[in-house]
Amino acid sequence: MSIKELKSELLKIAKVRSAISLLQWDLSTYMPPKGASWRAEVLGELSEYAFFLFTSERMGNLIEKAQEEAKSELELALVRLTRKDYEKYRKIPLRLFVELQKEKAIAEKLWEEARKDNNFLILKDSLKKIVKMVIDIAEHIGYEDNRYDALLDEYEPGFKTSYLKEICDYMKRALIPLLERVESSDLEKEGKGSLKKGSFPIDKQRELIQRVISAFGFDLYAGRLDTSPHPFTEVVGLNDVRITTRYDEADPFQALLAAMHECGHALYDLNIPKEFFGLPIGDGASAGMHEGQARFWENIVGRSLPFLTFLKPILDSTFPSLSEMSVVDIWKKLNTVRRSLIRVSSDEITYNLHIIVRFELEEAMINERLSIEDLPYAWDEKMNEYLGIRPDNHRNGVLQDIHWASGHFGYFPSYMLGNIYAGQIYWKLKENLPDLDKMVSEGNFKAILEWFKENIYSKGKFFEPLEMIKAVTRENLSPSYLVRYLEEKFLRNPIKR
Amino acid sequence: MSIKELKSELLKIAKVRSAISLLQWDLSTYMPPKGASWRAEVLGELSEYAFFLFTSERMGNLIEKAQEEAKSELELALVRLTRKDYEKYRKIPLRLFVELQKEKAIAEKLWEEARKDNNFLILKDSLKKIVKMVIDIAEHIGYEDNRYDALLDEYEPGFKTSYLKEICDYMKRALIPLLERVESSDLEKEGKGSLKKGSFPIDKQRELIQRVISAFGFDLYAGRLDTSPHPFTEVVGLNDVRITTRYDEADPFQALLAAMHECGHALYDLNIPKEFFGLPIGDGASAGMHEGQARFWENIVGRSLPFLTFLKPILDSTFPSLSEMSVVDIWKKLNTVRRSLIRVSSDEITYNLHIIVRFELEEAMINERLSIEDLPYAWDEKMNEYLGIRPDNHRNGVLQDIHWASGHFGYFPSYMLGNIYAGQIYWKLKENLPDLDKMVSEGNFKAILEWFKENIYSKGKFFEPLEMIKAVTRENLSPSYLVRYLEEKFLRNPIKR
Repeated sequence: MSIKELKSELLKIAKVRSAISLLQWDLSTYMPPKGASWRAEVLGELSEYAFFLFTSERMGNLIEKAQEEAKSELELALVRLTRKDYEKYRKIPLRLFVELQKEKAIAEKLWEEARKDNNFLILKDSLKKIVKMVIDIAEHIGYEDNRYDALLDEYEPGFKTSYLKEICDYMKRALIPLLERVESSDLEKEGKGSLKKGSFPIDKQRELIQRVISAFGFDLYAGRLDTSPHPFTEVVGLNDVRITTRYDEADPFQALLAAMHECGHALYDLNIPKEFFGLPIGDGASAGMHEGQARFWENIVGRSLPFLTFLKPILDSTFPSLSEMSVVDIWKKLNTVRRSLIRVSSDEITYNLHIIVRFELEEAMINERLSIEDLPYAWDEKMNEYLGIRPDNHRNGVLQDIHWASGHFGYFPSYMLGNIYAGQIYWKLKENLPDLDKMVSEGNFKAILEWFKENIYSKGKFFEPLEMIKAVTRENLSPSYLVRYLEEKFLRNPIKR
Repeated sequence: MSIKELKSELLKIAKVRSAISLLQWDLSTYMPPKGASWRAEVLGELSEYAFFLFTSERMGNLIEKAQEEAKSELELALVRLTRKDYEKYRKIPLRLFVELQKEKAIAEKLWEEARKDNNFLILKDSLKKIVKMVIDIAEHIGYEDNRYDALLDEYEPGFKTSYLKEICDYMKRALIPLLERVESSDLEKEGKGSLKKGSFPIDKQRELIQRVISAFGFDLYAGRLDTSPHPFTEVVGLNDVRITTRYDEADPFQALLAAMHECGHALYDLNIPKEFFGLPIGDGASAGMHEGQARFWENIVGRSLPFLTFLKPILDSTFPSLSEMSVVDIWKKLNTVRRSLIRVSSDEITYNLHIIVRFELEEAMINERLSIEDLPYAWDEKMNEYLGIRPDNHRNGVLQDIHWASGHFGYFPSYMLGNIYAGQIYWKLKENLPDLDKMVSEGNFKAILEWFKENIYSKGKFFEPLEMIKAVTRENLSPSYLVRYLEEKFLRNPIKR
């Protein structure tokens, strides 16, 4: 009975959050521009309400009562996860939560302006306030060693900053030399496939994407594909998970890659057991595990030779002008390794270095070792240190991502951890499905999806990410698997496979 | 200070309602079908929350305190309107409100099924429950003479059933003979314009509609035009009013007429003073006054010879196959008077008779003089009595409208009252803008919109509809103006004008 009451209260909050999700999805897709300022107020109101409900005395009592009654593993997990979040969020004063929401709305607008004007100063003061509030929140939540731990735990439960630093050191030691080897390899010297000129109408691109994501297993009756300036996935409700992409009429691969990425997120969300929906257990294991799924479908599948073999005839019939490009030409185009300034368009090797730059900077900001004034300079320095290039301006440097303006400190590492999880899981998947490449080249993704359902999606948030890696691969987390995947992929000539 | 507090609480509720509006808009436009059942729960949760907030003790106290402080006419109106709704809704038990919401969701689904299967029995039991609950609500609200008054007041504040019956009697006495005269007139004998065959791509139709509604004054940066099975207007937020239409590839006029109708609603909503938004005064005077605006732009403007003169070159350039039709041909096509079974596609004369059928039936149901069992038979009888035709099945008869399944008893009269208001206001408008026809034929709608802004839109809900008619036309409401408009329109040959 008490468990039922707790679930019912959690579902009530989930309904409010579902409205918030739709309001956010609409904000980025269809909302008429003049509706923006009222929309911000509606979002603020409902976010405050959801926060209030979740941190109320009532919730505390429901958890206590449910605790006494919980018996099954699932019930125990439900109470444990709810209590963890409850105790954390209850430490954050409602006032502080509301103020941060408001400042975020302001900072996001200023970020857009600053980016357009290529001027960090426009954002500086608001970002300062955000960082101050985020630090304040971290102090309220509490931590043992590093203030950043309090934030990191939101996205990667069970992770410590010290461990993350070790992983970053490993990655730098492995990837910086790998980057040099790839640059001097035969493969790179052969030159890259270039896109045949031509216009690729958006309608056709959308059709192509819908075929691909349907083949992956995305149910278009339980989701949508729309357009937005920044691609994203939104769980609007039970059986309602929406993804977006952005189109470039001169290059059909950009929208496809972004859609495959978001499709990975959506497949995870859509295949968590329905009975977990709306409960703390009805989520992915972590932000990184989620990113891992996105990066798996985008990169490990989407940029692979077998996948492009499957894609080729569809591509040719959709865009006859592309038929002159061979599968290998396309592979090269999608797998160019290059020291570039922009994270979202970077290759699978340098992407991780982009993340390390961000993680090290935000960890320093949160621990007040780096001032907001010095941030742009520190950014440029780190880019030069790890990637060997220096941004020519703020837009291509410190202003390229919205995350900090949105108050999302602690999220960036999840992108890299996602790659690392996906890399390690990939080898296990290959072991279990020896015909993996053949399946992919034939467009048969069913067994892959089933494997993920059984091993990952069906578990919801039952495991923390490190536990899940162990449960799935029978080994502790190791970034070596990702590095091995990257070495095999980028140091072996695809033509000679 | 107290006024400010009252406003702030009302705006809080408006924010919740704004989320509900978006959830409803999305439900009818973009929601993936499998998301439906969760969506119903989200809507139920937020509706209950909004109802709870509005009927709480806290709201009662805020009204009391604001009452003492209110000085300006506007402040007094704010308190008066809030108190009226508060006292009404507070009489309705929350339990009853929630149950009705749930039963509506069920009945609407059954209505769809019943309509598809052409079988009233599928809906019958659920409709019985709905009527019982609506009667229960009317009893809680209370009334003097007629139980139906308690429902009618929701849509047409200040109206009594007895007065509405007088209006219906007048309308029947005027329109049934007028219908016969039109049928035997030269005009009708000349035959009707018929649509040149051809396919009218939806994209082109949408473009055409956007040009027309923009010309009317609809700001596409503060609104949207989308597609849905049943056209509607939704105020999603401040500066965010969305309309929908439905397309028929074989006939471009259906979507245009529906869009002009919804545009009329939207122009009203978008031009109520921004500072009234979210407050009880920030609404139209009544559902009928709102319909009146919709019917004005759809019919009095949209089906007029001057408008079609303006439209003709745009139409020809969009759809060259239509260029063989003259303006008069098109006028005839859009103004065919015919005894037909379906309300939404009926002409300007018989439309009112369709409404009277519905009003008389629902008034009898609410007062328990007509059982749900007898409803289909009573429907057919009344159709035969007023329109001289008898439905061949339930789908074209009693099952054609969703209103009763949605619990909207008391709304139907607003459609006819809308026509009557629009008719009376039209003559005043013509008096004030003697060049009206010329303006319309030149596509210059600015002065019309300005006139409506000044005389109607800017007043929000400050006046009840009968007061507003008096304020605008300096006369009491009289359906004779509508009848005169219809006589002039349908008994005069457009060619001889």
